[in-house]
Amino acid sequence: MSVGKSILRVDAYDKVTGRAMYTDDLAAPGMLVGKVVRSTIANGLVKSFDLQEALAVPGVVKILTCFDAPAIDFPTAGHPWSTDPGHQDVQDRRLLNRRVRIHGDDIAVVIAEDEVAASRAARLVKVEYEEYPALVTPEQAMAESAPQLHENYPRNILKETTLSMGDASFEQAAGKAALVHQGNYATQAVQHCHIEVPVSYAYMEKGRIVVVSSTQIPHIVRRVIGQAIGIPWGKIRVIKPYIGGGFGNKQEVLYEPLNAWLTYMLGGRPVKLEISREETMLGTRTRHAISFDITSAVDREGRLLARRVDAISNQGGYASHGHAIIMNAMNEFKMLYQDEMALELHARTVYTNIASGGAMRGYGIPQAIFALESHMDDLALKLGIDPIEIRTKNHMQLGFVDKTTGITCHSTGLAECIQKGREYIHWDEKRKAYQNQTGSVRRGVGMAIFCYKTGVYPISLETASCRIVLNQDGSVQVQLGATEIGQGGDTVFTQMAAQTLGLHPENVHIVSSQDTDVTPFDTGAYASRQTYVTGKAIRQTAEVFKQKVLDYAAGMLKCDPLDLDLVDNKILGKDGKEAIALEDVAMEAFYSLDKQTHITAETTFHCKDNTFSFGVGFAEIEVDIPLGKITVLDIINVHDSGVLINPQLAQAQVHGGMSMGLGYALAEQMLFDDKARLLNDNLLDYKLPTALDTPELAVDFVETVDPSGPYGNKSLGEPPAIPGGAAIRNALLHATGVAVNSLPLNPQKLIEHFKAAGLID
Amino acid sequence: MSVGKSILRVDAYDKVTGRAMYTDDLAAPGMLVGKVVRSTIANGLVKSFDLQEALAVPGVVKILTCFDAPAIDFPTAGHPWSTDPGHQDVQDRRLLNRRVRIHGDDIAVVIAEDEVAASRAARLVKVEYEEYPALVTPEQAMAESAPQLHENYPRNILKETTLSMGDASFEQAAGKAALVHQGNYATQAVQHCHIEVPVSYAYMEKGRIVVVSSTQIPHIVRRVIGQAIGIPWGKIRVIKPYIGGGFGNKQEVLYEPLNAWLTYMLGGRPVKLEISREETMLGTRTRHAISFDITSAVDREGRLLARRVDAISNQGGYASHGHAIIMNAMNEFKMLYQDEMALELHARTVYTNIASGGAMRGYGIPQAIFALESHMDDLALKLGIDPIEIRTKNHMQLGFVDKTTGITCHSTGLAECIQKGREYIHWDEKRKAYQNQTGSVRRGVGMAIFCYKTGVYPISLETASCRIVLNQDGSVQVQLGATEIGQGGDTVFTQMAAQTLGLHPENVHIVSSQDTDVTPFDTGAYASRQTYVTGKAIRQTAEVFKQKVLDYAAGMLKCDPLDLDLVDNKILGKDGKEAIALEDVAMEAFYSLDKQTHITAETTFHCKDNTFSFGVGFAEIEVDIPLGKITVLDIINVHDSGVLINPQLAQAQVHGGMSMGLGYALAEQMLFDDKARLLNDNLLDYKLPTALDTPELAVDFVETVDPSGPYGNKSLGEPPAIPGGAAIRNALLHATGVAVNSLPLNPQKLIEHFKAAGLID
Repeated sequence: MSVGKSILRVDAYDKVTGRAMYTDDLAAPGMLVGKVVRSTIANGLVKSFDLQEALAVPGVVKILTCFDAPAIDFPTAGHPWSTDPGHQDVQDRRLLNRRVRIHGDDIAVVIAEDEVAASRAARLVKVEYEEYPALVTPEQAMAESAPQLHENYPRNILKETTLSMGDASFEQAAGKAALVHQGNYATQAVQHCHIEVPVSYAYMEKGRIVVVSSTQIPHIVRRVIGQAIGIPWGKIRVIKPYIGGGFGNKQEVLYEPLNAWLTYMLGGRPVKLEISREETMLGTRTRHAISFDITSAVDREGRLLARRVDAISNQGGYASHGHAIIMNAMNEFKMLYQDEMALELHARTVYTNIASGGAMRGYGIPQAIFALESHMDDLALKLGIDPIEIRTKNHMQLGFVDKTTGITCHSTGLAECIQKGREYIHWDEKRKAYQNQTGSVRRGVGMAIFCYKTGVYPISLETASCRIVLNQDGSVQVQLGATEIGQGGDTVFTQMAAQTLGLHPENVHIVSSQDTDVTPFDTGAYASRQTYVTGKAIRQTAEVFKQKVLDYAAGMLKCDPLDLDLVDNKILGKDGKEAIALEDVAMEAFYSLDKQTHITAETTFHCKDNTFSFGVGFAEIEVDIPLGKITVLDIINVHDSGVLINPQLAQAQVHGGMSMGLGYALAEQMLFDDKARLLNDNLLDYKLPTALDTPELAVDFVETVDPSGPYGNKSLGEPPAIPGGAAIRNALLHATGVAVNSLPLNPQKLIEHFKAAGLID
Repeated sequence: MSVGKSILRVDAYDKVTGRAMYTDDLAAPGMLVGKVVRSTIANGLVKSFDLQEALAVPGVVKILTCFDAPAIDFPTAGHPWSTDPGHQDVQDRRLLNRRVRIHGDDIAVVIAEDEVAASRAARLVKVEYEEYPALVTPEQAMAESAPQLHENYPRNILKETTLSMGDASFEQAAGKAALVHQGNYATQAVQHCHIEVPVSYAYMEKGRIVVVSSTQIPHIVRRVIGQAIGIPWGKIRVIKPYIGGGFGNKQEVLYEPLNAWLTYMLGGRPVKLEISREETMLGTRTRHAISFDITSAVDREGRLLARRVDAISNQGGYASHGHAIIMNAMNEFKMLYQDEMALELHARTVYTNIASGGAMRGYGIPQAIFALESHMDDLALKLGIDPIEIRTKNHMQLGFVDKTTGITCHSTGLAECIQKGREYIHWDEKRKAYQNQTGSVRRGVGMAIFCYKTGVYPISLETASCRIVLNQDGSVQVQLGATEIGQGGDTVFTQMAAQTLGLHPENVHIVSSQDTDVTPFDTGAYASRQTYVTGKAIRQTAEVFKQKVLDYAAGMLKCDPLDLDLVDNKILGKDGKEAIALEDVAMEAFYSLDKQTHITAETTFHCKDNTFSFGVGFAEIEVDIPLGKITVLDIINVHDSGVLINPQLAQAQVHGGMSMGLGYALAEQMLFDDKARLLNDNLLDYKLPTALDTPELAVDFVETVDPSGPYGNKSLGEPPAIPGGAAIRNALLHATGVAVNSLPLNPQKLIEHFKAAGLID
């Protein structure tokens, strides 16, 4: 058995010793270097360039501007392609934009012999603009007088959705309620802060463009490059080496199309394009700031009768994943809890001039859960019942079927997760003990729950392919379009393949790098889909492969293949004893003079199912009221992600997500001034928590066996980042009685709230 | 139709612009560098090393000697593996040899931070030897008193074979002959002189060894590294980039095992190992010097009654391909001409201390044809009949079946080839015109014919695998274990795939580089096998792939797949009109929400057939008798290689081979002194012909359609190098009446012969 064991990461040694090769390690020295010239206004039009001084910098090879770039609008979101134009991503970007929509927009690019020359020249490019007022908030952008950022999007509304469910209207339901409560909850824009900035290099071979890039989605990058440059997709090859984190920002096709175009414009000379930390923060993607207005009608026992949610997402300058994210957030309202009578959802995504929101771990759910779970505590408080009780009364049960998507709850350990968290944090004692505190330092416990889908079915295509290749010693390579992005994918894929093949994991060699020329198609790492969807492709392909090996062995042994099995690296006969050495079968298949064949197997699994993961976060905090400072005393996440393929890696995944959740809860935010300029575009001013800011992170699991998962498993990648914000906010409510309804819960904000509540002067 | 067109080489632009990446281009700067320490004696034993001075050179990281190397004997020949130990290559090499058998033997290796430090230190390694007498010739080596070079090989005979065919003994046949003639013919050792010297680099990833190498046979390199180091073959990954020529020298596993061991001994640090030109000449492989003693019995009309051939091959210090090469040479005697009564063959391969013979374009046949075709002219002269006539009376006919191998003559254009050459060179006029010349400058015409097998069946395994992968635009990648080695393989593979798929060649993207982790198994480039054997795998896989595409299209169109065909990039219906765009089918297969699948196909073709190519060389020369100098006035090769996949590339292949044949005929030879030291280990002293030495090379073809070839094609890679030597020697005989029976026909040798013949004093 390989699944369920905490084997060492297959890439541990190479990564720890620095031997693992990342994009920049592979870029040959002496390559040309591209440097993006960025707009110094957030909203306007480039009228002209003066390139004279820039071109005079020694080492400058070429400067290309928005006037040179093809007039092709393309999308950047890393979604599977849809053959239905109505379901395709918004195409609102160009390689270089004349119409500037964010501060730092890409308007030109310098190509030079080295980084220094490129940067010097980029600073010397002179630009004349026509400037329009900057739109920082959705409210500004929706104003009648606001300049329109994109054609076809009046009042800058990218998309608006209204959805009503249930047999009654909200008003009808409210009439029967014991309590109708309304609250506003707001989340801030934050950035992924992956260690490795976006970096790629491109060159041409045999008339085709090759791009080596730090991406989560090589096959999608290939497609978007084709769209952006307007060439057939088969003329592009994308290679993905190891990557230093992505968290969704590399589920976006950021600079690969520009890089591809640069080499193309230089007749195929290799060009590297690295985006600095500052550029990454202002010019790539963020977690959308979404504000929610929630009104709930509940009965006396806390049963939800009806809810109305009105949410607005600040999209920033470009559509990216756009409305998909707020819609994922809205889904959480109809899935996590069921309203007996009515649910009304209204969502808008609005273009502004701040940095564009895109995919980020959790894809709208961290925002939704902050709002929803804060709101649930507000309801509990008003009703005078325990926060756990109100959740238990309303949360999703086994067998639930989402009415609009058909997604079914195939397994749930949510109730057990809650119970484990409750016991760990000593909920019942502490909820009592921390009542009626006085003094300037107080404590509280809070919690939040969530559910999370696994992959994107049925919203989008879910598919994965796998190829397995035999070696002479009976070991195999497993080749996948799915990507290792630091999460341990390669390790769990290895375990899955070993499990089904009946091999030891050391005899399964995962091909870590993807190359769209030869790698089986898979849409990539996002939506916590890979262990589930790719896992199914691995299992199916391994079954086919194993049967081929057994058939070949049966031919050698002149027996029925059904009498053979491959277990623990051994081919066993009916009697359970080794019938023939696996290596002998492999050698015979490779070198037989009678019946030679290279045993390989390749299959696609088109996945038409989905399932829910669950989890809870519990936090105990201490708050110093005069300082406005929260100290997290204890924090735990308990997850039901089905069977854990590798418990230790699962725990590490949760640690990372909790850390991200803590930053989101307490410190991180992107600050824009009224010109939509990002004020903290670096890791000094942007308060990413460090190890010193991070308490011990407790992790526990409830291992359900999901019948739809290839190995009983379901999503785990994104969930850990979700519950932290609400759990801490609710602990703060418990400690102080003060409801802080926006993130981050930083001292500035807390002091304001405590003053307003009269706790301090 | 793609086959038969002279499309541009797919790698032409990249190679001409210098964009194509070779091994050394890919090696990251700053890699450690290995430098082999070579023995300064040819025969003996290393007693001890003094490394003190060498280790003191700044930058030296480690020195490993033959005392550190594993005590594992391994083979180096690039043959397919045989599971039958009796059929495996001789294992007589170690990574580093304590028992020294050639001058320049690998006895230690310095690893340093750069080339300069490594070379300096290598020169400072002090070695104490026990020295034995050097054996330069097989006669010396077979002497009773000669020191034995390898255990188990008494009198240094690597192998000896005797074969008798026919219904009578030679003596019986000779009794009925009009003429019994005996002659001795000898060929010299020459070197391949590929532009790119052997170079590789190695590193480790995930506990496995990766070797990037300039090789013709990546899958075999992997296997031999495993054997040499004694680790499972699946723990090794070999990558082959573009290579700058091999000609058989890179059908040998030369330094990859040592390179693999170096990185292994350094804990996985990357190490590059480049073998200089001088080292390549003395320490890699050569074309065997083989001497032949031929006695023929013929009737009055020139019909061959019986022959006896006794041949000895000078193997040099290590077995390499060894006896296989002289046996291939011996085969030519039983295939090209049939003896009515008897054929007796006796072949010996003898270890000596000169540089080791190995595979080189033609694999023994250039030697055999020099001997055999010189001999045929000697017979014709003695009988007073035309050299063409004696050949026409005896050469292989359609339907011939080799009695020992079963190889059948499926097609032959030999008679037409002879006719074409005869006309081109104005044979009949000139044979007459150049009779009875006097004076110091005379002219002559000569010719030679040959046959050549296609691949190694049934001597060894013949198999090839192919994988085809669909892109969204309907283009495909073709992935092969077969290798582009400069011969244009990638281009003709592209054409073959395009032909069967019904695609334009520009929509077929060949994956040029091989990576044993993911590349389908194929034994590689040698034996002129790839267009034939790999061609069958391409055709078979393309048929499977095309059917998958048509099946998918039929599903979309709800029609019978048998009503569809893919022609000229278009899916045609019964009515011969486009039924659906190929790109639409590809897009639907990639992105269908109903039935998604990544269309790929992978198959192995286990080839159990072989066929003969044929050809002739005709030369007209002028010889300046006092100068001993031959000027080639006109030369043509006419080949029957079946259908030409790409006529222009075929012509280029013949040009290259003819040039190689000219060097062999007129100038090239490796000169060893009595200590077995190579005297001309560089391209100044070793007389490789340059463009200035090369006359216009005429090429013509007779295009038979071979029924066993995948596209009617048969071997072409090696044949062009074969007939030159004998054709020029026979022209010399015609011009002067002097039979020079050894190569090269250089001035020193000609002067000697002319003196002996009394033409000069």
